[in-house]
Amino acid sequence: MSIPTVLFVEDNDDDLELAKLALHSLDAPVNIHFVRNGLEALDFLFAQGDYADRAGEALPKLVMLDLNLPLLDGREVLKMIRENPRTQAVPVVVMTTSAEPPDLNSVVRLHVNSYVQKPMDFERFQARLVQIVRYWLEVNQVAQT
Amino acid sequence: MSIPTVLFVEDNDDDLELAKLALHSLDAPVNIHFVRNGLEALDFLFAQGDYADRAGEALPKLVMLDLNLPLLDGREVLKMIRENPRTQAVPVVVMTTSAEPPDLNSVVRLHVNSYVQKPMDFERFQARLVQIVRYWLEVNQVAQT
Repeated sequence: MSIPTVLFVEDNDDDLELAKLALHSLDAPVNIHFVRNGLEALDFLFAQGDYADRAGEALPKLVMLDLNLPLLDGREVLKMIRENPRTQAVPVVVMTTSAEPPDLNSVVRLHVNSYVQKPMDFERFQARLVQIVRYWLEVNQVAQT
Repeated sequence: MSIPTVLFVEDNDDDLELAKLALHSLDAPVNIHFVRNGLEALDFLFAQGDYADRAGEALPKLVMLDLNLPLLDGREVLKMIRENPRTQAVPVVVMTTSAEPPDLNSVVRLHVNSYVQKPMDFERFQARLVQIVRYWLEVNQVAQT
């Protein structure tokens, strides 16, 4: 079985560093690929642009998506993932500091799999991140499309 | 904060007993409500029939749904949950012994939140069930509708 990939979409430097640190503590074999904006996320998922060489590769078993992203907003990324038959079954978890109902409702309507509020405290953030990745890699089953 | 509810929809006696046993080991305060067919699941969610007294109650924070159910199939239950504005944001996890792609694809198209294959071994089943309930109660955030 090949090592699963998680696509982590986050533009904030601090959050990115914290996530890298947190994910070091995962004991499962997993490739975490970090991208910093919405367009790069789509290039990775659709194996285009700088990621054209991914054409034969398996899709990520999880996309961790921030909402407020440069170049292309997280909601647009989610919409395009759900509209394309290649990616519609890819699990997407939105993790954001915002717990504003409009944010949450908009991504629920776009059929996000799960919405998680980012804890402010690093230890809780780390624990939550590990819990998220383990659930989607070890418990959830992804459809082959 | 009121105690969250999980709706567990399962018709098989053995699986129901195993689930009850497994969920005893949860250390979180949670009401697990068990129903045995698709119609009863909808009555519970829509506060109708025998559950008319639930009209003012909070929706479950998680629905654990079997697919092959008497009276109304799990796919129909999922479809009606997603079509109704009252329930469209309720997280639904389908857990089934089947890992057949047609089953998985059909529920992905109906926007299930997560699909989990039921382990055959009781200890793994128990661990998985606890992991599922903890993720959806402790990590995931549910939209208020």
